[in-house]
Amino acid sequence: MGFHFEVLKTDPTGARLGRLTTPHGVIETPAFMPVGTAATVKGLTQQALEELGAEIILANTYHLYLRPGHELIRQLGGLHAFMSWPHPILTDSGGFQVMSLAPLRKVAEAGVTFRSHLDGAMVELTPERAIEVQILLGSDIAMQLDECVQLPAPPTEIERAMTLSLRWAERCKRAFAGAAAGRALFGIVQGGDDGKLREQSARALVDLGFDGYAIGGLAVGETQTVMLEVVAETAAALPADQPRYLMGVGTPADILEAVARGIDMFDCVLPTRNGRHGLAFTRFGPINIKNAHHADDPRPFDAQSRCPAARDFSRAYLHHLFRSGEALGGTLLSLINLYYYQDLMAGARAAIIDRRFADYVGETKEQWIAKRDRSS
Amino acid sequence: MGFHFEVLKTDPTGARLGRLTTPHGVIETPAFMPVGTAATVKGLTQQALEELGAEIILANTYHLYLRPGHELIRQLGGLHAFMSWPHPILTDSGGFQVMSLAPLRKVAEAGVTFRSHLDGAMVELTPERAIEVQILLGSDIAMQLDECVQLPAPPTEIERAMTLSLRWAERCKRAFAGAAAGRALFGIVQGGDDGKLREQSARALVDLGFDGYAIGGLAVGETQTVMLEVVAETAAALPADQPRYLMGVGTPADILEAVARGIDMFDCVLPTRNGRHGLAFTRFGPINIKNAHHADDPRPFDAQSRCPAARDFSRAYLHHLFRSGEALGGTLLSLINLYYYQDLMAGARAAIIDRRFADYVGETKEQWIAKRDRSS
Repeated sequence: MGFHFEVLKTDPTGARLGRLTTPHGVIETPAFMPVGTAATVKGLTQQALEELGAEIILANTYHLYLRPGHELIRQLGGLHAFMSWPHPILTDSGGFQVMSLAPLRKVAEAGVTFRSHLDGAMVELTPERAIEVQILLGSDIAMQLDECVQLPAPPTEIERAMTLSLRWAERCKRAFAGAAAGRALFGIVQGGDDGKLREQSARALVDLGFDGYAIGGLAVGETQTVMLEVVAETAAALPADQPRYLMGVGTPADILEAVARGIDMFDCVLPTRNGRHGLAFTRFGPINIKNAHHADDPRPFDAQSRCPAARDFSRAYLHHLFRSGEALGGTLLSLINLYYYQDLMAGARAAIIDRRFADYVGETKEQWIAKRDRSS
Repeated sequence: MGFHFEVLKTDPTGARLGRLTTPHGVIETPAFMPVGTAATVKGLTQQALEELGAEIILANTYHLYLRPGHELIRQLGGLHAFMSWPHPILTDSGGFQVMSLAPLRKVAEAGVTFRSHLDGAMVELTPERAIEVQILLGSDIAMQLDECVQLPAPPTEIERAMTLSLRWAERCKRAFAGAAAGRALFGIVQGGDDGKLREQSARALVDLGFDGYAIGGLAVGETQTVMLEVVAETAAALPADQPRYLMGVGTPADILEAVARGIDMFDCVLPTRNGRHGLAFTRFGPINIKNAHHADDPRPFDAQSRCPAARDFSRAYLHHLFRSGEALGGTLLSLINLYYYQDLMAGARAAIIDRRFADYVGETKEQWIAKRDRSS
């Protein structure tokens, strides 16, 4: 199977129902990709990921490049074989993690040099190297190397990083020519919160020509209003027949609003990271299971859920697991959250088919608010 | 279903095939009970426990008494409902944990007073209270309160604790008269490494009359040879038609040898605790997955295993999870170990049916040794 994308339906809001075909399988869009940083979605078995309906996961090039190393993973048959996940995988380029995790880094035209957060060694990541690593990992969708700046930032800084990212995009595209047929490379639109820079970045990337386009450098400090404006402006500058991926976003509300603005793909650590910290996403809004008033609550999170953990365990039991520092608590809440995100996307896809996506967003948000008082 | 035990076959070694019937289901013996200390077998979902074939689990009265409290669990429908485990549960009495976990304790005729390791509060556990807690938890099999001494110990100290445990046994039996019909209470033989004291303890307990008999106070510092001698002597003094449970034992080798001496039930934290620390039990002997030479080993632990984790993941991947501090590593090795223990017991039962248990022990041990060099 080669890479292929089809928009099947479009809702009046601009939300799109699509189908993404990759060498390792088909993904219904809009899709949420659980984050499997170090070749594991933290605390969950691959079997559990299959059961909850994840059709694609994301893995972090930065982490795997540093440990255990892309050459070892290649030698072991590639990332799919290494982690026993025979379904699609998207790898990021490592650029974002260099910015957020490395204790020291220096960006130059050639690439970025950084100190590993693991052992302090100095490591270089160039556009060519980022692509080589992803090719050896064998991901279905690779990302260009980009530079992402924290917002707010001075306009000149945003523009510098955006134009550098464009030059890196071109080098990545050239380097990716060696990848196996059927694999995809996505360009990443940068430009901070500046609509004009975003449009300029998008048009230049489209001129280069990629298999899909991501919007990077958002959810890095700006308000949701600003983020959604930038998403709308950027999406308008991207080809209607290619996939659009909003990187690192976000809350259920962020995702629904971005789907309404024509985004097809999402990834975020929130469902798993918040789950490990005791925060659940449910149909009735967020619930912090560590709050004392859950201690004797016999109700499950959601008796109607498809998720066994949301259905079969009382809030009292989940509260007990967190109070006792038991690993199962984080695992069950991560499961509950990922089921919720998958179900949110399935609901979105069904609503787009019926051309009632705006109603779906309204009903979903109403339910979060209506029950918040008695369950959070 | 009421409590009932039947010996179906006896092997020339003395190993017994049995069937234990409890209010929540039937257990084939010899059986291994995974330890679910705080109403969770650490890191594993209840679904995973069902899949690996655990027919009964053990929960620790000491932990649940302190947190979240037996009255809360009772109010939430009992331990089976609380942890969503509809199958048999055995609870210990808390005595062993008071000795091993409480930073301070004082044993008197009335019971034991100890400082909670959680919040420093002084707590009292009497025989009557230990039974009340277990009745409210609703376990299928409850244990008498006993005093367990660390070995080596002076004979007078061993005898004192043994006779105190006998008096507590009588009080526990009286207190248990209030339990729902069908639930079982086991007495616990004490007496350290002294065969005469063990025999005396066993005969006195049998005179009192319990639903089953445990051997406590072993695997607390003595050699395997001493332990097995005591097991053999004690088992000989116990009724042939009632279940025998060796508490807190042990390694696969310990278990096989104890089965050969007529023991029917086992529990131990080794498969889960060692699993969390990177030590796997396999058909080919123990493997420390943290050793560097596993880093590039594409082989699974056991391609023939019934356990998906032992079959589907390379040693290189499991090594990577431990090196990266990923929780999935501990979860997968705990699974691998509990599958191994369950399969070891299934193999034992099959061998007893064929009256070839001694051969089974020999073959199993041979396989551990034969492959040790290249896989540990």
